[in-house]
Order: sequence, then structure tokens, then C-alpha cells
Amino acid sequence: MGWHYAALEDRFARLGHLEGALAILHWDTAVCMPEAASAARGEQVATLKRLAHDLLTADETGELLAGAEAESDLDPWQRANLREAHRRFRRARALEPALVEALARATNACEMTWREARRRSDFAMLRPALEEVVRLVREAARMSGAALGLEPYDALLDEHQPELRDALVAPLLDRLAAELPSSLDAAIARNRPFRAPRGPFPIEAQKKLAERLMARLGFDFRAGRLDASTHPFCGGTPADIRITSRWREDDVGSALMAVLHETGHALYEAGLPRQWLGQPVGEARGIVVHESQSLLLEMQVCRSPAFLRFLAGELEAAFGPDPAWTAANLRALWHRVERGFIRVDADEVSYPLHVILRWRLEKALLAGELAVADLPGAWAEGMRALLGVTPPDDARGCLQDIHWPVGAFGYFPCYTLGALLAAQLARAARRELAGLDDEIARGDIARLLAWLRARVHARGSQPGFEELIEEATGGPLAAEPFLDHLRARYLERPGAA
Amino acid sequence: MGWHYAALEDRFARLGHLEGALAILHWDTAVCMPEAASAARGEQVATLKRLAHDLLTADETGELLAGAEAESDLDPWQRANLREAHRRFRRARALEPALVEALARATNACEMTWREARRRSDFAMLRPALEEVVRLVREAARMSGAALGLEPYDALLDEHQPELRDALVAPLLDRLAAELPSSLDAAIARNRPFRAPRGPFPIEAQKKLAERLMARLGFDFRAGRLDASTHPFCGGTPADIRITSRWREDDVGSALMAVLHETGHALYEAGLPRQWLGQPVGEARGIVVHESQSLLLEMQVCRSPAFLRFLAGELEAAFGPDPAWTAANLRALWHRVERGFIRVDADEVSYPLHVILRWRLEKALLAGELAVADLPGAWAEGMRALLGVTPPDDARGCLQDIHWPVGAFGYFPCYTLGALLAAQLARAARRELAGLDDEIARGDIARLLAWLRARVHARGSQPGFEELIEEATGGPLAAEPFLDHLRARYLERPGAA
Repeated sequence: MGWHYAALEDRFARLGHLEGALAILHWDTAVCMPEAASAARGEQVATLKRLAHDLLTADETGELLAGAEAESDLDPWQRANLREAHRRFRRARALEPALVEALARATNACEMTWREARRRSDFAMLRPALEEVVRLVREAARMSGAALGLEPYDALLDEHQPELRDALVAPLLDRLAAELPSSLDAAIARNRPFRAPRGPFPIEAQKKLAERLMARLGFDFRAGRLDASTHPFCGGTPADIRITSRWREDDVGSALMAVLHETGHALYEAGLPRQWLGQPVGEARGIVVHESQSLLLEMQVCRSPAFLRFLAGELEAAFGPDPAWTAANLRALWHRVERGFIRVDADEVSYPLHVILRWRLEKALLAGELAVADLPGAWAEGMRALLGVTPPDDARGCLQDIHWPVGAFGYFPCYTLGALLAAQLARAARRELAGLDDEIARGDIARLLAWLRARVHARGSQPGFEELIEEATGGPLAAEPFLDHLRARYLERPGAA
Repeated sequence: MGWHYAALEDRFARLGHLEGALAILHWDTAVCMPEAASAARGEQVATLKRLAHDLLTADETGELLAGAEAESDLDPWQRANLREAHRRFRRARALEPALVEALARATNACEMTWREARRRSDFAMLRPALEEVVRLVREAARMSGAALGLEPYDALLDEHQPELRDALVAPLLDRLAAELPSSLDAAIARNRPFRAPRGPFPIEAQKKLAERLMARLGFDFRAGRLDASTHPFCGGTPADIRITSRWREDDVGSALMAVLHETGHALYEAGLPRQWLGQPVGEARGIVVHESQSLLLEMQVCRSPAFLRFLAGELEAAFGPDPAWTAANLRALWHRVERGFIRVDADEVSYPLHVILRWRLEKALLAGELAVADLPGAWAEGMRALLGVTPPDDARGCLQDIHWPVGAFGYFPCYTLGALLAAQLARAARRELAGLDDEIARGDIARLLAWLRARVHARGSQPGFEELIEEATGGPLAAEPFLDHLRARYLERPGAA
């Protein structure tokens, strides 16, 4: 290992410290910060981001990268680290500083307008700001694409999930688009009546149950915590993982499922290779893989009939006896399928249809085939075609998501590809780990977690995206495991999966 | 205003953002951080501190300072800002980077050793690490002094309280050393029996009472919060003030008084000139002034007989009836004077004697007149001379404070000078605000706060230290107001002040 590579690691370590500090500030903003501090916090974050950007894009970083490339004695992890460092450098240098600044300003303004526009369900109010964001994102996608040798939309996908291309996305989502609308009909026809659990559910008791389950699933509270925020998320750093959820006294399910989902993200972060903490190769392998870990825990494990048997007992212990606490009733309740308007409230069967709508529309917006002004109409039309419902207003239509206002295009497909990967990983794990569901029925996922550690978590970003999937599951990312999972859970003998 | 000055403000604004981020990380470390994150947090903090140090000490900062000095159209605030910016630059540049690093390493190691040595009451264990710290601090004081034209000990005092010199400290502390030992005898003789309040005091109820009192005293919860930590402190930034205390179910007084003390710090921060937020001139005018604000609120206001009448009602409302909740009993309880070993537990009369001991010893250590090895003996001898007691062990002797292990020499005098200034400010306020104690007896300090805002808080660092005191109180810092206060409260007719 020559001095260029060593100096490069040192530089990225400092970058990692800045990003770690930013992660804690982000958590603090959502969980602790008093309202009047918001402007000052914005300045702190902007200054730290600028220092990080300057450190990453400095000419000296480029010189160290070039020098390290010429150093021949790197081991495979160091070489992968160099590759990932180069990737970050190239991406960050692809955009002119003026465009980065214009985007930051435009998305900041658009996000604020969006909050008000959604509250009023007033798309006209959002339109000019969103037009500006679309214009700038299109320009950024073109510039990044040119620098990276990618089509513009691929350049956006690649930002969230390295190596992801629309050529991989399209056949998968088209397959789901062809099959899920009819599955939705069939699944809804099989919804069964359920008994609603009797609240109220004291929030302290909900939190205690959540913490007990997190610990049971492998979350280490010496290196993380659980708090409340408006929107659930998993933040912090691998040594300091900060999960949030939101609790309501009249509903025990949604906060709990949010915690279990975020715990999946947390276990991935906790399992990243500790000796590479803070280096590019030590990071998670992109948003699709991250989402696969949260959905694997939530959908494949915690909503499985086996785990629901365990959970029924836990709920009774936490809140006292209630005829609602049976595995069969929890299945009727939590395997329910509906035609809804809101993506984040959607079930497993309809969720991909919400994603497909957004994926089609964002590609049309960026290609200039759809004007921002025509978005509400196109949204309503797409909802009718895919889900068979018409949103009653734009708040429950094209104003519901924060992603586009903040400039996150090319992100939505990651959710559904994550669901596919979760099903594919779960199938591989069940194939290799005989008796897994018996363990899950006891709330014990230790063997599954060890399997995920070895196949996914501890690999960090050492393998590429497609390489990781191939090696973990034996094949490329596919739709079949997910569709089989939906068939088994929602379309076959009641309560089978 | 020329471009040099404008660019300088921009540079110090960025420095302020870094320091604001560090303040939140510091709070998070004490209040939220899970234990396993400690090493990673240390790295984050070190990187942010280094970036801040680089920004401050860069040659470019010096060039901007020189250019701004030549710009003739600055208003008085801008000129003061330039003066304070220059001060920070000169101080930061005075030390060679190698010494700064050696000090950081030595104090870090010494602090860790100290925690263990104090736990075991084992001074020999601490000795080598403390010797190294003393050696480096002596070198740093010499270098800073040379750069700033100050005696070494004055260079240390000046770091915590600009303009503070031992020529000001010595006559004040000598005066107290001459008078307080006999006052202590007399005050102890006047201790009256008290009725201990009957616990337990549920911590939630204690916190609610603390928050109610904070709000009543003018703390704005839209711009701050109250939490729990091992040691009470006031951190954050003026727009985001974070107070902590520590609660025990069996004791209602100590946590409450800690909250009221920290609220004094908080009100100062909140009242700093908002338009100068983040600039050097917008900061508090040093540790003596800061300590004067916490002690003014705690000692001069909240422990006054007037406020204790109000507090007796609040305690009864919070915890139910108890014959202990009378103003007379609270005075007997909270005006009690004792010969103790521990500085942080000391009452108003004996506290300065603890400070005087440390002030004498640290000067002797730095002058090379006292060897670190002889510290336990010198400590015990000083305690006998000043307080008439002999510590039973070093844990309750020279191992009790964190200050020296972390390199904070020249800090202790600020506590007692803050107490003097608090008494002097309270006397001036009572002279100008007729009927103030009637308001205090209703828990209303609005007029007092407005007075402090105008005389102290809103002035930031625009005036110098001595100028601020002169203009606020009509004279230089003196011992008489404090001694008069002690006489009235502890030595005259029972319960008068």
C-alpha cells in the first residue's frame, strides 16, 4: 500500500466524520430540535455539506486517486474502496458548482411550497417551483450522464443504487404491471373479516414492546436507540443507529410495523464491515439493497404467519388479553389488501403499482414528454389504469410524495426492486436454512441474521450490486420470487405464507 | 464597509456554524449517545474542531483581518467584531500546532486516567499524566503570553475571561480569604433546624415543575429544551439552548437549583444580540460574566426569601401538602452553611474558599513552586487553613475536579468573580428597580430580565469586560456587594435576605 492510497483513506475518513456529524444533526432536527432553531440548523448543515463537498471534489483528491490507481499492491478490499472512492469523486465532480447551488436552492424552495400546497391540495401553487426543479434535474441528469457515460435517467438511478439501469428496471416493473392488477382483484376478494384490537394502547407500552422486539431481533441498544418523529426513519451511523417511529394511542399496528421495517435497515447498518467503517467500501450497497433488508424483516419475517404466532403472544403480554390477539386474526388484519390512494399506506400487492405509476411519470417528465402542468391529469389516468381508482384530490394524488419536490427522481423504483430482492433473499435463505420458520415462530432470527450478515451486510460495497445478488441468491434479480410470495400469501389457501 | 470586512464576517459565520454543530454534538454525547458510539463521536468532533481551527488560523484570515483594519467606515459594532475576531485569531495562532496536538492527546489521556483514579481515590495513578499536562500547559501559557504580551497565568485567565488579569483577581480573592473563614464560623452557628421534605418526588413531576419555573422566568421552549445528563450544563446555541439537570426521586432541591442555575446561563444566551448571532461580537462576554448570570438567577433571585415564598406554593402544587413547604423552612434548608470537602456541593459562604485553594495551588504548580507529587499534601494543608477540615481521602480532595486533568487552569477564579459580579449586578438592579422583591415574590422577573438584557445580554462582546461592569453597575468589580449579601443572608437577623 503506497502513500497515495493511505492519504486517500485518511481523506475519506475525514469525509466520513463530516457525514456522521451530518447524520446526527439530521436526526436531531427530526427528533429534538426546537422549532425556532430551524434557520440556524439549515446554516450549520449547509456549511458542513459544503466542507464535505470541497473535501471530496478538491483537485488533491483527484491526484490521490490517480496516484493510488498506480499503486499495485492493494488487496481486494482496498481496490474496491478505491473504485468506490473514484465513483463518488466522479459523480461529485460531474456537476458544475453553479448547478449544484441552483438545485439546492430550487429544491429547498420547492419543498417548502410543497408542504403548503399539499396541505391545501393546490397543485397550481406547486407548479412553478416544480417546473424549475424538473428543469434543473434534467440538466443535472444530462451532465452526470455525459460525465459517467450513462443515459440521463440511468445517471439518476445510479445515484441511488450504483449499477442500476433502466434496462434492468423496465422488464421487472413491466412484468409486475402486467400481473398485479388482476392479482389485486383476486387478493381483495380473499380479504377476511377481522376483529379490531381494543385500544387505547398506551404509548409507553407500545414503545416498550417495540424495544423488546428490536432487541429480540438483534438490535444492539448499546449502539443505537429508538425515538419518535413525524416520519419513521433509520439514521445515524453504524456505531450509533437511530431509529424513529410515530405512535398513536388508537393504533398498535402501524407504529410497530414501522419499527420492524426500520430495524431491518438498522441490522444492515450494524452488520457493515466494522474495519471499513467510514470508508466508501464500508457503506451499504445502495438503496435497493437497503430497502431489501427492511422489507425482508418486515414483510418476509415479521408479517409471516410464523412470526404472527409469536407476535400474538407478545401483544397479549404487552396490552392484556383481547380476542384480537390470535395469529389468524392478525393475518386477516395485516394481510389485508386494498385499492388505496396513498403509497405509504399501501399493502404489498398494490405498492408496486404506486411505484410503477411514478416511474412512468418521472421518465416522461424528464424526457419532456409530459409537462408538469399535465401531471394531475396523467396521475389520475395512471391510477385508474393501474389501481382502478381515481384520487379525489391532488393531496391524495400527485402531491402526496416529497420525492420530486426535493429533486429525488429515479428513487421510486428502488422501493419495489428492494421488495423483489427481499423475496429472492428470503427464498434463498429458506432453501439453505432448514427449519427457519420454526425459529421465526419463536421470534428467533439469529440464524437468518448470521446468513444475511455473511451474504449481504458484512460485504459492504466490496462486491458490485449485481455481483452481490448473484452470489447471495444464485441468480440475477428477478420478479418470480416476489410474485410467488404474493401468490402464497394473498392468493392461495388462506394464511399459508 | 469594505470587502475585506464582509469576507471576514462570512468566514466567521462559517466558523460559527461549525461551532454550533459541535455544540449540538456535545449535547448529544451527554444526553443521547449510546455508549458504543463514543470512539466514532470522538473522531467526528476532532475532525470538526480541526476544520474550525484551520479556518480560523489560515493565512487568509490574517490577510482579511489586516485588510479590514484599514477599512475606515466600520460602525462601532463592526469595529468591536473585528477586535474580537482579531483576538481569537491571535490566540489560535499563538500556539504551535504540535503543542496543540500534544495538549489534546495529553488532556484526553489524563481525563480518562482521572476518572479511574478518582473512583479508586488513587492520586499516584494520576500523577504522571497530570505532570505531563502541567508541563504542556505551562509551555502553552508561556507561548500565549509571549504572543499576547501577557504574563503566563494572565494568558490562561484571559482565555476564559478576556481582560481578566491576576492583578484584578488577587486583591478580590485575598479580601475574601481574609474575611470568609470567620464568616463561616458565624454562619454555621446560625444554621437553624429544618424539616426535610417527604419524598419520593416522582421525576416526571420534578421535570414538569422545572419546566414551569423555567417558562415563568422567561425561558422560551420554542428555542430550547430541558433534558437529563450526568452533570447539569447549558449548551447548544442562542437559537437552540439545551439545558440539562440530573434528577433523583429522593431529593427535590438539588436538581431544581441546578435547573435554575442553568436557566440563568440560558437567559444570557437567549438575550445575546440576535443580529450578531454567530459572529465573535455576538458571543457572551466571557466566563465570569456568564457565571454572574447563572448565580444572579440562582443565588440572588431564586434562593432569596421573596422567591422562596413563591416557590413554597409551587412545591406544594407539584408534590402535595407537606409542612416542609414554607418559606421559613426552605430558608433553613437552602441557606444552610457547612464545612464540606466538595466544591460543587458547597454553599455560597464556603464556595469561594474552595476556589481560593485551587487558585493558589494552580499558580504554584504553573510557577514550578509546587510539584504535582506534593499536591495532596498541599491540598490538605490548604483545606485546614481555609475551611478548617481535612479531606479523608484524595477522591474528596485534590482528585475531585475535572478541570486540571483536562488542562483548564485559570478557570476556577471565574466562578467566584462571577459570584461577586452577580451580587454587584443585583445591588444595582435593586437600586434602580423599586419594588423588585415584590415582583420576585410573585415569581415575576420580567423587569429584572429587561434590565439584564439592556445592561448585559444584548451588549454581547461589544464592550470590554471592565467597561461592561462599569456601565452596568457604576463601578469596577468589587468584593463588597457580595460580602454584604452574605452578611445579610447568613449573618444578620435570621432570614433577612
